[in-house]
Amino acid sequence: MSRDLVPAELAERIAAGEPLALAQGITHVENETPGFEALLEELDARLGRARRIGVTGPPGAGKSTLTAELTRHYRAGDLTVGIIAVDPTSPFTGGALLGDRIRMNELTTEPGVFIRSMASRGSLGGLATATREAADLMDAAGYDRVILETLGVGQSELDIAASADTTAVVLVPESGDGIQAMKAGLMEVADLFVINKSDRPGADRLEKEIAIMMSIREGTARRTTEAGWKPPIVQTVASAGEGVSELSDRLDRHFEWLTETDRLDARRAERRLGRARAALLRRAQRDAERIWRTEDLESLDGDTPYGVARTLHARMRGDAGGAVG
Amino acid sequence: MSRDLVPAELAERIAAGEPLALAQGITHVENETPGFEALLEELDARLGRARRIGVTGPPGAGKSTLTAELTRHYRAGDLTVGIIAVDPTSPFTGGALLGDRIRMNELTTEPGVFIRSMASRGSLGGLATATREAADLMDAAGYDRVILETLGVGQSELDIAASADTTAVVLVPESGDGIQAMKAGLMEVADLFVINKSDRPGADRLEKEIAIMMSIREGTARRTTEAGWKPPIVQTVASAGEGVSELSDRLDRHFEWLTETDRLDARRAERRLGRARAALLRRAQRDAERIWRTEDLESLDGDTPYGVARTLHARMRGDAGGAVG
Repeated sequence: MSRDLVPAELAERIAAGEPLALAQGITHVENETPGFEALLEELDARLGRARRIGVTGPPGAGKSTLTAELTRHYRAGDLTVGIIAVDPTSPFTGGALLGDRIRMNELTTEPGVFIRSMASRGSLGGLATATREAADLMDAAGYDRVILETLGVGQSELDIAASADTTAVVLVPESGDGIQAMKAGLMEVADLFVINKSDRPGADRLEKEIAIMMSIREGTARRTTEAGWKPPIVQTVASAGEGVSELSDRLDRHFEWLTETDRLDARRAERRLGRARAALLRRAQRDAERIWRTEDLESLDGDTPYGVARTLHARMRGDAGGAVG
Repeated sequence: MSRDLVPAELAERIAAGEPLALAQGITHVENETPGFEALLEELDARLGRARRIGVTGPPGAGKSTLTAELTRHYRAGDLTVGIIAVDPTSPFTGGALLGDRIRMNELTTEPGVFIRSMASRGSLGGLATATREAADLMDAAGYDRVILETLGVGQSELDIAASADTTAVVLVPESGDGIQAMKAGLMEVADLFVINKSDRPGADRLEKEIAIMMSIREGTARRTTEAGWKPPIVQTVASAGEGVSELSDRLDRHFEWLTETDRLDARRAERRLGRARAALLRRAQRDAERIWRTEDLESLDGDTPYGVARTLHARMRGDAGGAVG
């Protein structure tokens, strides 16, 4: 289905900004086609230009509309934007109501905008790693902003959004989900809160709630523990474009803060370490998958699942070096 | 924090039905304490008595209330019930509004009921495996029913619910999320639909929607492809206990169908295979984690993340058998 991968060639085309090459590259990464790591490695030196923005929150918070409006704002300022949607309810991934999806789709034909949805199928962390690597490819392709939209439910979804330079948590008034969402771990990943649909009653009350919860949980929040950054709260009506410019300013402000305090470098060094660790785990997992596929499982009939795993694991280690571990 | 694990001893106490031993066993499995696999293996021969029921759906559908009422129904029939909640918004896990949580907590002191929440922290599939194994322990401990409550958002959450013998998808009228939830993959895992809060307007309309969507997607649904089972739709008002008895009947009916058609054995054989595969992957992952922790990463400074992974992977394979793979 996918074309043959010649890493150096494809890397060059991605670096030159060819959208088709970028799309192919992401597919290679998603499918772990042979050579996909070489592709990522080729592009490694080009990383670090893009500002990465995570957008997360409960279903129905308007994350996609906000992402779309933010993208229009950036385009108006002549910045290019890559968008990755891993939210199954996002219009970008085809999960939302028809009207929303049509609105989002207008963006797909906009020059300087690249949209990609990632399927939430792997249950073993593959998606989280592939999504981060897709963001790397967009970075290498020269996009000024890379937006990662994820559903704020489930730890890996949150982790993906939190892997950005700046993570915006989007909530809505009246949902009653505010507190529940907080408890689901959203508080810990927020560099910035957005109260979307803020023309609805309850926006100010929600803002107060968030402020209170922040003050209570100050000690536990991932990104505020090191002190010096108090996540701002921005009210928006994304569907009308209201507040989007302020949101953009606040995002810039956070990025400046990261830069001034050397946290940007620290965060990016951490990102590289995370990538190495994930790549190592992926290799180990592939070894295991390979032996699972190739071994004769019927001969292990009658053993417990754990006995089977033990036997295959020993063979796997033995295969590698010639002796049974 | 956790006590020393002597697998055979703890297995005996779990098999004897000691709740404290069961709680300890699940903690061992969750933390992958040395010996946890031996514990699972000791209990392997005792598996297969419990009927496992998955309960999943969007946030706010009332899954926990339904689980609680179903549990009361089973208790009234003198059946014992184990509950595993992996839903971060569930009152069982402390994620919901206070009132709900108090109601759920009443169950925790009920004899014959064992409730456990699983933290949704591992982003590498560890949770999904540990949750299934916790269900195994409850099965081995002799609980007649094991209910797995998960949030129906995110593939691994759905997969956990779908690993049960029978999976109930809970929806509510008026949420507007019905179609979105469907698109998030709920349709594929449903052996049975529950329309909860059916005293609200729109219950009948939702029922029709589900029926239509089922007929459209018949070919793609995981569990209907083999034909012979049409997921029934049950209307409930869980908070008032309404429809719970009918739900219980329908669950029983599905279980009978599984038994009559030999699908129960097939599903359970598949479960054992899945357990072996997950255990093998976990072992490989632990090998990788071990080398990640013990190797001197600073000496690899300057290399790309993929170069680092390659080097460590080679060492990992070399470590096992004495040669570099």
